[in-house]
Amino acid sequence: MKRIGVFTSGGDAPGMNAAIRAVVRTGIFHEAEVYGIYNGFSGMIENEIRQLQFSDVGNILQRGGTILGSARSNEFRTPEGRKKAYSNLASHGIEGLVVIGGDGSFTGAKILNDEFGVPFVGLPGTIDNDLYGTDATIGYDTALNTVVEAVDKIRDTASSHHRIFFVEVMGRNSGFIGLDAGVAVGAEMTLIPEEVTNLDDLVYYLKRIRGKKKSSIILVSEGDDEGGAIDIMNKVKPQLEGFDIRASVLGHMQRGGNPSAADRILASRLGVAATETLIKGGTNLAFGIIGNNVNIVGIEEAISNKEVIDREKLRVIEILSRC
Amino acid sequence: MKRIGVFTSGGDAPGMNAAIRAVVRTGIFHEAEVYGIYNGFSGMIENEIRQLQFSDVGNILQRGGTILGSARSNEFRTPEGRKKAYSNLASHGIEGLVVIGGDGSFTGAKILNDEFGVPFVGLPGTIDNDLYGTDATIGYDTALNTVVEAVDKIRDTASSHHRIFFVEVMGRNSGFIGLDAGVAVGAEMTLIPEEVTNLDDLVYYLKRIRGKKKSSIILVSEGDDEGGAIDIMNKVKPQLEGFDIRASVLGHMQRGGNPSAADRILASRLGVAATETLIKGGTNLAFGIIGNNVNIVGIEEAISNKEVIDREKLRVIEILSRC
Amino acid sequence: MKRIGVFTSGGDAPGMNAAIRAVVRTGIFHEAEVYGIYNGFSGMIENEIRQLQFSDVGNILQRGGTILGSARSNEFRTPEGRKKAYSNLASHGIEGLVVIGGDGSFTGAKILNDEFGVPFVGLPGTIDNDLYGTDATIGYDTALNTVVEAVDKIRDTASSHHRIFFVEVMGRNSGFIGLDAGVAVGAEMTLIPEEVTNLDDLVYYLKRIRGKKKSSIILVSEGDDEGGAIDIMNKVKPQLEGFDIRASVLGHMQRGGNPSAADRILASRLGVAATETLIKGGTNLAFGIIGNNVNIVGIEEAISNKEVIDREKLRVIEILSRC
Amino acid sequence: MKRIGVFTSGGDAPGMNAAIRAVVRTGIFHEAEVYGIYNGFSGMIENEIRQLQFSDVGNILQRGGTILGSARSNEFRTPEGRKKAYSNLASHGIEGLVVIGGDGSFTGAKILNDEFGVPFVGLPGTIDNDLYGTDATIGYDTALNTVVEAVDKIRDTASSHHRIFFVEVMGRNSGFIGLDAGVAVGAEMTLIPEEVTNLDDLVYYLKRIRGKKKSSIILVSEGDDEGGAIDIMNKVKPQLEGFDIRASVLGHMQRGGNPSAADRILASRLGVAATETLIKGGTNLAFGIIGNNVNIVGIEEAISNKEVIDREKLRVIEILSRC
Repeated sequence: MKRIGVFTSGGDAPGMNAAIRAVVRTGIFHEAEVYGIYNGFSGMIENEIRQLQFSDVGNILQRGGTILGSARSNEFRTPEGRKKAYSNLASHGIEGLVVIGGDGSFTGAKILNDEFGVPFVGLPGTIDNDLYGTDATIGYDTALNTVVEAVDKIRDTASSHHRIFFVEVMGRNSGFIGLDAGVAVGAEMTLIPEEVTNLDDLVYYLKRIRGKKKSSIILVSEGDDEGGAIDIMNKVKPQLEGFDIRASVLGHMQRGGNPSAADRILASRLGVAATETLIKGGTNLAFGIIGNNVNIVGIEEAISNKEVIDREKLRVIEILSRC
Repeated sequence: MKRIGVFTSGGDAPGMNAAIRAVVRTGIFHEAEVYGIYNGFSGMIENEIRQLQFSDVGNILQRGGTILGSARSNEFRTPEGRKKAYSNLASHGIEGLVVIGGDGSFTGAKILNDEFGVPFVGLPGTIDNDLYGTDATIGYDTALNTVVEAVDKIRDTASSHHRIFFVEVMGRNSGFIGLDAGVAVGAEMTLIPEEVTNLDDLVYYLKRIRGKKKSSIILVSEGDDEGGAIDIMNKVKPQLEGFDIRASVLGHMQRGGNPSAADRILASRLGVAATETLIKGGTNLAFGIIGNNVNIVGIEEAISNKEVIDREKLRVIEILSRC
Repeated sequence: MKRIGVFTSGGDAPGMNAAIRAVVRTGIFHEAEVYGIYNGFSGMIENEIRQLQFSDVGNILQRGGTILGSARSNEFRTPEGRKKAYSNLASHGIEGLVVIGGDGSFTGAKILNDEFGVPFVGLPGTIDNDLYGTDATIGYDTALNTVVEAVDKIRDTASSHHRIFFVEVMGRNSGFIGLDAGVAVGAEMTLIPEEVTNLDDLVYYLKRIRGKKKSSIILVSEGDDEGGAIDIMNKVKPQLEGFDIRASVLGHMQRGGNPSAADRILASRLGVAATETLIKGGTNLAFGIIGNNVNIVGIEEAISNKEVIDREKLRVIEILSRC
Repeated sequence: MKRIGVFTSGGDAPGMNAAIRAVVRTGIFHEAEVYGIYNGFSGMIENEIRQLQFSDVGNILQRGGTILGSARSNEFRTPEGRKKAYSNLASHGIEGLVVIGGDGSFTGAKILNDEFGVPFVGLPGTIDNDLYGTDATIGYDTALNTVVEAVDKIRDTASSHHRIFFVEVMGRNSGFIGLDAGVAVGAEMTLIPEEVTNLDDLVYYLKRIRGKKKSSIILVSEGDDEGGAIDIMNKVKPQLEGFDIRASVLGHMQRGGNPSAADRILASRLGVAATETLIKGGTNLAFGIIGNNVNIVGIEEAISNKEVIDREKLRVIEILSRC
């Protein structure tokens, strides 16, 4: 394989640039040309494609976001759109693709493979950590640290004013961020989509620990069945008279920032491994890390399974915050 | 003066602990005893008062929040409440007070002085920077850096997705944070309470720079006349079809965090100066920094004036973001 | 088991406080009393032992260092010393121990077990990451991020002045920090104890990339066979005339700082698991994480084996920095 | 003035990029063309000069280092070298210069003005803060925060092991960093070039506080008359038997890193003001901030005076750390 394309797709995640750098330089190392496809499937259709040299990916290892951009594409959902995408790839002589993104992005690449036979490999890039076949996704560790640093700050003011805070974190339908951040910040409770939220229990608990703790932090995953942090605060407030309660939605800052050491290493290792596999003829594979080792699963397996949270961590939170 | 009291009041701010440490240790250095009054005027009324030793304020210089706590007190607004507060102070033999807080806190201490003759000095502690007689308030620099780091992260994801972000920052009725952060993050525009917001201009501007900039960040001070970031986003959205627009409210994380170098130095210097002045017999004075020098103003002057923003900075933002 | 002791030993590491908190609260959760032994084996001999309550470990989850302290003890190497240590434990009714530290600390606890039958479990606490049976040790991730942030800063100034920097990192006899940081900062080369360093190759390489890269960062693990960063700089300087070369030894800042999210989670999970195992009667066990799951190995196995670096990462560095 | 040049010179400092951005965009705003001169006076001689557009300085506001580079130039010290520099400027039609740097850089620009009449204005860019006519130099606040964060980390491990640390900070012949960091980290003592260091006093003091403090941090400015941190540690060690003493030299990380909010604002404000002044015909002026207002001094005054440290801060350190 002498010419490969790389693109980022779906929500951006810190470490995507480190992955792009790894793909480009690994390609060049093996004497392949590497083309950057801008703005995901949308740019593939719009022919926003240009060759990337070694130095084009210099000084990006440590930057958040993605220099290739990312965008939604409704057109890619149509056969015409995909045809256009394929013919643009073909016109550049691109023989294989490295896609950096989540489930949806892998699925898009797979359809392209099904319909036009374009070989591809996938790197797990999402802050949500919900991908199968890897201990962590690229961007997850950074997002988690961003959340933890923000909640540490909120804890300062919560303790000064003896307040309860409902803090909403990202994760779409998954509770990874909420659960891990809950352990890491010493949250009094964490509400995640994987567990049915019982607001009566929450109220009971907050009343029970009142006065025993200087402050309480309740993390709320954005996908919780009772709603976001503001919704839940409003629902329980009437039963918590006399309490000083606030809500904060951390928002999009969770998607940015310089990638952590772990995310840079993960992105670099997987970028090298995936690109070498693609060049050697591998396709329809998703790359991840299990127990410090590179792990490869078939793309169908990756797409059809979901990473599951570790419920033991709920017990850890309970043990460590119960007083 | 052989016994002084110190308390924090109003919204907490990073650096308050550094100020408390400075007051306690300066008092001890001059052989006075120092009593901590917990939870502001509320704790003064509830007699939450205890002596602080040198080591009680060890290892707090670098911590956000306030170890003395802060709380609202409706009771202090009544003559009975204040009488109770005074008699608690008297029962502990406290002869003078150092209050760390904003306008309202200074006013409370002044009333106590008017009614009972308790000498006091004030240290400017608020993230809002709206106090007269000082280049900066304790906590402002830290809050500003927190905002800047958060918006830098948002910029990463905004640029990856070519989005417009409305980001709401604190500051109550003042635009200090919004204005300074606007310069520091390279905001495309900043909306502050001191200026009438013209949404048509905003829409016009966003359309004009479309495609010229990878992303746009519009900072919105919480006190803006057109509302918060979400309000304003909703107002302009109908006129910005085809744009990808988001809003983020940074929230209470702006109040916490380890104080910056500048805030620790400011708090330490003012804490020493104010405490020494109080011990020597000074009263009804507010302390600040002007041009690297300690600056002292009468409390009435401090309360009756408001620090004003520097409109030149609006021009700086315009020059540096206009393209 | 109704009364357990916990102590930290050897070099301190960020996350040790999170581990202490987890041990104390898990003990209390299971209705055991937990005693803190201060300053490691030294304090065990000096009887620096006192009970810890739930709130004694409040607000320490996010703090670097260890509230229990750590110290060397020559006396513990003598039978008399250990006898004293044991009789102090016995006098407090301590029936089992949780030791947080490295190889040497585990060995000390094992001797105590051999000689006096004191049950114990071990948590891997060291920034060096050289312990067997775990993907990572408590403190490693934080130290790695500290190194990466520092080297990112050095890169800024190195690139501005087109300099070569030799940057020395910790790790004692192990190259974990050097190797992982090398990937994460995009080092041009990393010199680790596990590989024989060839200075001629280094000189050749630096000459070859001259002018192609704005700056070069050569990481040097403190245990490298050719010496530290300053030694190596001095050795190669004569052969690199005309180059602007500097050295920096990052030093003890690598041991401190607020623990990262990953270290807090690791410490909390292992603290719960180890304490529950000890209470249930387990002993002579070392706890770790493999592939996101708690992993337990016999203490002999833990002590007699060494974690080995992943040489593939050397290849990753070479591929990604070669130009 | 229709064409101006901008360059950075001397040691790099965080915020230089923010200043470059401000100069370029202010020039363009006033319809002047702006040329970047790479690598200071060296690049002026080597004709490393090219026009900068609005977007060339996008996304650099928040980056450490200087995109224009900096380098020493011995050739500029010769009349021939300066003649070459001038003729390169003239060949590009550059009519005025903005120099970002310290004393030496200002002096270089002044000589060029003396000899060839090239108008110029100066922005104070150095982490040393030793320039006259400004409350702070560009880069100082960031460097100070870098030092404070590093020493906070060292404090963690120092306290865990009850150690004395000698920590060396930058500042060349000035004690600004040492003094301000001393206040900000709660150093037990700070040794600065402006004060004669008495090692006997130091030893006496360390013995006196032994056991009263968990750890001691002695900051050593690199320009201290008794030498650096390692020198001083070695000198006092024989008199401090039984103490556990370490030294750490923070090194070049102090020069890099993302600029703080204050540095970005300072650089942006001064960049706008200086460029507008130059374009309007001003020359031989140095720009600074005094008490939040832009302050302008003649270049001779700026060069011939030195900013002096505030000795009151030594007293603040003594009061706040004495126990």
